[in-house]
Amino acid sequence: MKTRVSYQGEPGAFSEQAAKAYFGKGCTAIARESFRDIFEDVAKGRSRYAVVPIENSLHGSVHQNFDLLWRYRLFIVGEVKLRIKMSLLALPGVTMKNVRAVYSHPQAIGQCEKFLHRLKSITVNSFYDTAGAAKMIAAEHRLDAAAIASTQAASEYGLVILRAGIESDHRNFTRFLVVARRQTRPGRNAKTSLIFATKNIPGALFKCLSVFALRNINLLKIESRPIVGAPWEYLFYVDIDGDAKEKERVNALSHLQELTSSYKNLGSYDAGKIVDP
Amino acid sequence: MKTRVSYQGEPGAFSEQAAKAYFGKGCTAIARESFRDIFEDVAKGRSRYAVVPIENSLHGSVHQNFDLLWRYRLFIVGEVKLRIKMSLLALPGVTMKNVRAVYSHPQAIGQCEKFLHRLKSITVNSFYDTAGAAKMIAAEHRLDAAAIASTQAASEYGLVILRAGIESDHRNFTRFLVVARRQTRPGRNAKTSLIFATKNIPGALFKCLSVFALRNINLLKIESRPIVGAPWEYLFYVDIDGDAKEKERVNALSHLQELTSSYKNLGSYDAGKIVDP
Repeated sequence: MKTRVSYQGEPGAFSEQAAKAYFGKGCTAIARESFRDIFEDVAKGRSRYAVVPIENSLHGSVHQNFDLLWRYRLFIVGEVKLRIKMSLLALPGVTMKNVRAVYSHPQAIGQCEKFLHRLKSITVNSFYDTAGAAKMIAAEHRLDAAAIASTQAASEYGLVILRAGIESDHRNFTRFLVVARRQTRPGRNAKTSLIFATKNIPGALFKCLSVFALRNINLLKIESRPIVGAPWEYLFYVDIDGDAKEKERVNALSHLQELTSSYKNLGSYDAGKIVDP
Repeated sequence: MKTRVSYQGEPGAFSEQAAKAYFGKGCTAIARESFRDIFEDVAKGRSRYAVVPIENSLHGSVHQNFDLLWRYRLFIVGEVKLRIKMSLLALPGVTMKNVRAVYSHPQAIGQCEKFLHRLKSITVNSFYDTAGAAKMIAAEHRLDAAAIASTQAASEYGLVILRAGIESDHRNFTRFLVVARRQTRPGRNAKTSLIFATKNIPGALFKCLSVFALRNINLLKIESRPIVGAPWEYLFYVDIDGDAKEKERVNALSHLQELTSSYKNLGSYDAGKIVDP
């Protein structure tokens, strides 16, 4: 049976590209409406994996997915860094002159801000999804509008590419995490993701980070997130290098748990390579 | 002359509420389309201040504004924490039964996820702004649709409140920063905001935080941001307690500059109070 992988968005979404890049073109990629849906799919066993965007190099973190990683009992088993190329798509025969309205996801609009700033007398409209915007242009036969989406979305919905590579900075990557119900053992290029809340005492975060610094364990990322319902208290999302099963890291994480009020090990997995589709 | 304060959004936006809460109802609040516009207004002297949303207790940070704080030579001179109440607004005479479509900003939609999940057979549509969605409902005389926005937006556009307090968690606050061209001296309840990039060496962030921990200076917030164009390198946005002019903090910040590759002091200002409009 083919591997079932859930992703958020419509066919042609960047998340679908990430799923195919990680699992190969033969996997069964399942389009779902919300991030919550893809976590539910894996938790309930409807899919074996979900591919979850967590961070874009231009636009920042997808915060909702940090919260879902905290709430669901799932593990991170892989990572993929996808090069993001944005294109302006329209129906065949439509030229730049005809375009009066542009539709896309707010993050994609943000990434193409400089390009959109140069276009005069157009309206820019938020849409729930990049590929969804392309689908709508095709379904409603809009001859006055264009969508910002992947080039794959063009072939998916029979659109043509008016402009390619319209993102503000071409060094534009999105980091996706692969989540599953069971942990796997990583290879040589391992990293480990953690979420914790510090005790409310002075120097609390400094003490937490000391458990890594004292053992020369590299911190790859840190992000604080407000705790829902506890204004101005914070969860920390931290990536460290290495496998949590290595002796030094076992000690560091045991030490960390003495210093935190909540703690969750999200799993160890191989650091992802950059994929340029 | 009245104080001119720029905010992003349409009249009735939460940012306008924050401006009036901080400067009083007598200020001249100027509606602008983008966050970049309000930074430009202050930089060019068209407005004395801008009111900038930076963090929501449910939904996380407004990352674009961290980047604008890094890029513009402006200072933070104040802070206000606004209690956010979301309401469902429609034209007079419209009832819940008539509503087939809901329009709002993606962050507001995210904050009302549980309420929207319970409504069947409606479509949820992203709009550029909460108050803008209310304005559209009124302007296009939509009898089949509602907007999620502030109660102030109802009176601004002649709409009625179908449901009030529809946000998922009622402990919902947005923290706004007040920015200006010149620094001011804070009072007793001071905090200081910093942005820095660490040198790419092991334990770099730990060393940076030690300059505060060794002097018992409290860390109020930390957030890492990817550096645009340098994938997977990070800027850190940090709030500490106290005024940067106090001797211990002068020493700490001088020590910090030895350890960072880039550094910017965004200013010292009085920590904001919670305002419940």
